[in-house]
Amino acid sequence: MLIAYSSWPEIDARLKTTKTVIVPIGSNEQHGPTGLLGTDWMCPEIIAHAAEKTDDGLIVAPTFNIGMAQHHLAFPGTISLRPSTFMSAITDWVHSLGRHGFDHIYFLNGHGGNVATIEATFSEIYADPSFQARKSRVILKLRNWWDLPGINSLCTQIFPTGHGMHATPSEIAVTQAAYPDRIKTADYSPKIAPNGPIRDALDYRARFPDGRIGSDPAQASPEKGQRIIDAAVPALIRDVQAFAEDPIH
Amino acid sequence: MLIAYSSWPEIDARLKTTKTVIVPIGSNEQHGPTGLLGTDWMCPEIIAHAAEKTDDGLIVAPTFNIGMAQHHLAFPGTISLRPSTFMSAITDWVHSLGRHGFDHIYFLNGHGGNVATIEATFSEIYADPSFQARKSRVILKLRNWWDLPGINSLCTQIFPTGHGMHATPSEIAVTQAAYPDRIKTADYSPKIAPNGPIRDALDYRARFPDGRIGSDPAQASPEKGQRIIDAAVPALIRDVQAFAEDPIH
Amino acid sequence: MLIAYSSWPEIDARLKTTKTVIVPIGSNEQHGPTGLLGTDWMCPEIIAHAAEKTDDGLIVAPTFNIGMAQHHLAFPGTISLRPSTFMSAITDWVHSLGRHGFDHIYFLNGHGGNVATIEATFSEIYADPSFQARKSRVILKLRNWWDLPGINSLCTQIFPTGHGMHATPSEIAVTQAAYPDRIKTADYSPKIAPNGPIRDALDYRARFPDGRIGSDPAQASPEKGQRIIDAAVPALIRDVQAFAEDPIH
Amino acid sequence: MLIAYSSWPEIDARLKTTKTVIVPIGSNEQHGPTGLLGTDWMCPEIIAHAAEKTDDGLIVAPTFNIGMAQHHLAFPGTISLRPSTFMSAITDWVHSLGRHGFDHIYFLNGHGGNVATIEATFSEIYADPSFQARKSRVILKLRNWWDLPGINSLCTQIFPTGHGMHATPSEIAVTQAAYPDRIKTADYSPKIAPNGPIRDALDYRARFPDGRIGSDPAQASPEKGQRIIDAAVPALIRDVQAFAEDPIH
Amino acid sequence: MLIAYSSWPEIDARLKTTKTVIVPIGSNEQHGPTGLLGTDWMCPEIIAHAAEKTDDGLIVAPTFNIGMAQHHLAFPGTISLRPSTFMSAITDWVHSLGRHGFDHIYFLNGHGGNVATIEATFSEIYADPSFQARKSRVILKLRNWWDLPGINSLCTQIFPTGHGMHATPSEIAVTQAAYPDRIKTADYSPKIAPNGPIRDALDYRARFPDGRIGSDPAQASPEKGQRIIDAAVPALIRDVQAFAEDPIH
Amino acid sequence: MLIAYSSWPEIDARLKTTKTVIVPIGSNEQHGPTGLLGTDWMCPEIIAHAAEKTDDGLIVAPTFNIGMAQHHLAFPGTISLRPSTFMSAITDWVHSLGRHGFDHIYFLNGHGGNVATIEATFSEIYADPSFQARKSRVILKLRNWWDLPGINSLCTQIFPTGHGMHATPSEIAVTQAAYPDRIKTADYSPKIAPNGPIRDALDYRARFPDGRIGSDPAQASPEKGQRIIDAAVPALIRDVQAFAEDPIH
Repeated sequence: MLIAYSSWPEIDARLKTTKTVIVPIGSNEQHGPTGLLGTDWMCPEIIAHAAEKTDDGLIVAPTFNIGMAQHHLAFPGTISLRPSTFMSAITDWVHSLGRHGFDHIYFLNGHGGNVATIEATFSEIYADPSFQARKSRVILKLRNWWDLPGINSLCTQIFPTGHGMHATPSEIAVTQAAYPDRIKTADYSPKIAPNGPIRDALDYRARFPDGRIGSDPAQASPEKGQRIIDAAVPALIRDVQAFAEDPIH
Repeated sequence: MLIAYSSWPEIDARLKTTKTVIVPIGSNEQHGPTGLLGTDWMCPEIIAHAAEKTDDGLIVAPTFNIGMAQHHLAFPGTISLRPSTFMSAITDWVHSLGRHGFDHIYFLNGHGGNVATIEATFSEIYADPSFQARKSRVILKLRNWWDLPGINSLCTQIFPTGHGMHATPSEIAVTQAAYPDRIKTADYSPKIAPNGPIRDALDYRARFPDGRIGSDPAQASPEKGQRIIDAAVPALIRDVQAFAEDPIH
Repeated sequence: MLIAYSSWPEIDARLKTTKTVIVPIGSNEQHGPTGLLGTDWMCPEIIAHAAEKTDDGLIVAPTFNIGMAQHHLAFPGTISLRPSTFMSAITDWVHSLGRHGFDHIYFLNGHGGNVATIEATFSEIYADPSFQARKSRVILKLRNWWDLPGINSLCTQIFPTGHGMHATPSEIAVTQAAYPDRIKTADYSPKIAPNGPIRDALDYRARFPDGRIGSDPAQASPEKGQRIIDAAVPALIRDVQAFAEDPIH
Repeated sequence: MLIAYSSWPEIDARLKTTKTVIVPIGSNEQHGPTGLLGTDWMCPEIIAHAAEKTDDGLIVAPTFNIGMAQHHLAFPGTISLRPSTFMSAITDWVHSLGRHGFDHIYFLNGHGGNVATIEATFSEIYADPSFQARKSRVILKLRNWWDLPGINSLCTQIFPTGHGMHATPSEIAVTQAAYPDRIKTADYSPKIAPNGPIRDALDYRARFPDGRIGSDPAQASPEKGQRIIDAAVPALIRDVQAFAEDPIH
Repeated sequence: MLIAYSSWPEIDARLKTTKTVIVPIGSNEQHGPTGLLGTDWMCPEIIAHAAEKTDDGLIVAPTFNIGMAQHHLAFPGTISLRPSTFMSAITDWVHSLGRHGFDHIYFLNGHGGNVATIEATFSEIYADPSFQARKSRVILKLRNWWDLPGINSLCTQIFPTGHGMHATPSEIAVTQAAYPDRIKTADYSPKIAPNGPIRDALDYRARFPDGRIGSDPAQASPEKGQRIIDAAVPALIRDVQAFAEDPIH
Repeated sequence: MLIAYSSWPEIDARLKTTKTVIVPIGSNEQHGPTGLLGTDWMCPEIIAHAAEKTDDGLIVAPTFNIGMAQHHLAFPGTISLRPSTFMSAITDWVHSLGRHGFDHIYFLNGHGGNVATIEATFSEIYADPSFQARKSRVILKLRNWWDLPGINSLCTQIFPTGHGMHATPSEIAVTQAAYPDRIKTADYSPKIAPNGPIRDALDYRARFPDGRIGSDPAQASPEKGQRIIDAAVPALIRDVQAFAEDPIH
């Protein structure tokens, strides 16, 4: 069940049996010379929506599409929240969903740069009950889609070299599978982009002139993307199921 | 050009000729017994994407899908930001887009409840240059899709009674045109919902038990929705064009 | 009863029968070549205090005298809060008054530029009970003094041309009636000021060099101001009475 | 020159010769069984306006009428900002006035409970240039009216016993001189109220049941108030003059 | 009992009999040509730890070592919080300690520049219960170590001239007693530093080029410092004991 | 050079040759039945101070001793900042140090629970220059002391079983080496504590009743702690040296 495409009485009825909700979360940011700016919010949305088609017992929230991308701001099209804004927004999403009775909130994340701030937000949300000596109404889980069981190893197997850290062939392949009419090509060099630390936007652009980190995205294809999606869907369903059974103390 | 579905070099190239960007903005909130929870962010997205297909000189940002819906929180599936969070998030979007050189930012809004807070945010954004005696880098415009020239009168003509204020047949018709496989039906009464003031969530649900305000949404149909979209698209294109020519002092 | 000019036992006694309070709210900002900087907080104060003299059952709070005037900051004497500060301050006023048992809080506003931010603040205040699934302790109403029943039409009748949007002859006339020793005169041209959008402070001053928008304030006189006040007083009393009877759900 | 009662061209002209502005600041809070709730903002306003009548070279801003009064909230009619809100609001006033070229901002304070937060705000305002290694645009001074040279000793001479700390006969006398038609009487006991620490609102009301601290306000009279005003006016004029000559490093 | 050097079961056991905790609080900021940057957090730590050795019934929290020092930022090594950050951090400390059952929290302060902001924070903390009409869980006290009974007069007796306001011989002597291997010497002139107002950092450095205000710190010695410590310890023990007996209303 | 134990002229002189500073950062929180509450801020302080004794070219800031420990608040003695406060405080430290010319700021961290929030703070700090298209003044690095090259493997070698995640024998051993007179003993069971997720405080205490996660801290000894310190010191010196040579783009 996709929340945005349902009516409130449908959600109301489903809440009688399910208290777990999946929130696809990502970023809108440069993904190298060929990647779509929306790659990081599209990937978790693609996988979560495919999983919901397989098992409509899953409830999927709208996609949280803008995240923590300050380091990509020197590339046009990138839109970023400040971490403090990101934290406030996630908190409001959680409190909205918790208000309706969802008590297990599972964030399926598509952007490595979001991880630290999402985890910090979880602590901020938990801090209220912790300071007040009461139980939290919700429990929260963050899962990067590539960390779903089996997916990292599959990606490495498909792309043994040039997978890299940003604008990876695996994430680009996932978007190609979903949006084959949006495939871009470009010449770039070196074939495999450099690695290095991530700091502010100008430093990033100086180190990684076309936006890639460690990757060779031309290896992506819609077929490879579909293989990843097909593996991620059952992995997600099992992972959410296990989380749904996790008790609240 | 849809930013999310483009690469950064494509946006970079386009910025040489265009400095105006459209941001579809709405809310994810109950829309009565039959409306989709996503109605308010879908409508501006549907219209903006249709306009972009007609005139690909338009640049459309990702959709800002969660807004100011605290009054709908007693209905499951609603997700709301607090106004203060909403303001911070819009501010970060504007500063991201302004960073790339967009200097005319046009918000196509799908939710009446957003209007006051978006306007307050514009003032907050302008306040920085105003306090510092410098020029603003961006100018900002808010347009509700139903306030595009000719649209309100068209909606009233199509739905002379029972249009109402929330879960209106016109907005539901627009989503039916775009997502015909998501059409919902339900019995409801009274045929035309009551009117009244909007306050907090429990007050809202007490006044408007099924979520509608003043509307009879069963009048909606995909065909009527398509008529509205077809009228809104050229109106949007003209409105954005006029805004793009508005000088910055 | 004016709160500031009363003792706490007097307020305490009155709270046994009245739970409604009027807060005059405005701004301190340029009002063209002849208008007083305090015009926007003086007008609602003048009308509310006159109403309280007529019907001392009314309870009137001190005047909230600084509002959202960032766009006027290029004119000396203007004092503005940022919208976010304005929201925090209104929230604290509301929680103070609500703490004492006032549950109907009526803002009589004198500045159009305040409207969006006051409405956003109401949503922020309501959001707390809405997120927590409890009833709001207070209900809130915003009324611009010129929107009191009958007042706009009276102003248009007195000033059929050159009323405009800022530094209007009607608001200046109201202050002339109350402070006849503070009447200013000046040469200005054009006789009727231009109209246009409101953005940041430098943009405003470039568009509206003497501060007026669409108005010809020299038409004001104390007598005309007194006519407006005399009409506004009973309109306010009736409007507050109707609000006081509005139930809290 | 009173800013609120002037036009912007008048302020503009005066700024050519004067860069110093006085801001009367106080609180709206219970003042015992007989004191006006507005006492603490009225006193600095009364004195500053009287000084301006004597020496119209003084520029006086509108009165900042709500301050830090959380400890009085158990008494009806009290309106308080939170310290964090108070700090934001003072900051915005300072930046507004500084925007116009006022570089010496003198706060004439009427409420002891404001002192710590105003001083903290000054540090917050100075912190921006301090962190950025640049000069501050403004210098700031806080003066309680009773600390104007000679005033404390005069008050003690007029009221050798029962002056106390809150709802003092001197401050009530000042308001009686200005508003003789608002004089209240009440029986209270003990004649001289107790002293003690100031904490939260319920603690305050338990310690000081009628609101007074250490005072016997029935000693106040309009004549005594006028003596205090007459002494405070020249003291203020001299104090502001000395401040105006203080250089900015 | 020093919290940081204890285990949680030890604190748990002690909380059965003691609900009072001492928090040493200071600043890390320049202290003239010879003073240690840590002087202001070391002094209250030295005295509190010495008191705890004498009477292990005292519970001493870790030292809050960074405070409000924006005015010293033109001198290398100074670390300052903004007042708003300082307030948030103190609030979190108080709520953490209050969570465990400490209901009397005593701040032993070593920096005059902290006083206003700490007092403002106390008001911010009390404001929550005050606005909500409930009792505060904690009561709070601020004591500068030099204001412990008898200490100021002792310091004046030891250093009859050149004590001054910042980088005083008494505070430097206290650190010399505790850290005799960290004693610094330097030539400076004038022998007694000037006095003046405290504003932003550049203003401060212009007025007080070597950082001292009104002091001649070369008079300090470890022996004099030990005399001060020896007097402060029993004064602190008595002061805390009196505070611990102060009832919560 | 320890900043707190130096004078400002000493720091000033050193800044001519060194722009890198180490900030020990940790937490004050329960560490099981035998661990000191200060363990997490003591460990990085112990290692950094030992390194500074070896190589006084290192500059070490005061210790940031309170971090993100909301999940430990059900155990007495724990003091936590909220993540948002923690972020503001780290930001102020960084801007203070950056003000003096330190452009490489190295946080030596002692608490795993701090990592996400420190990384989020780095992004918040970098966001300012990133949004403004200017270079960052500082570069920032986070290193957990146990992630210094070679340390994790050493700890695992010394404690092949029962090392665990919280209240580990390695961290307790480090504090025992530094504070041998503060060694605690206690009976506990099971010998090796359970593992599990970290959420709010009550959940934590329900899962981990004596506070340990996965550890058997009784294996700690001062000698083992000294071995760890002796290995960490040269590793830290090399790591800081490499960071100091990292260019700023």
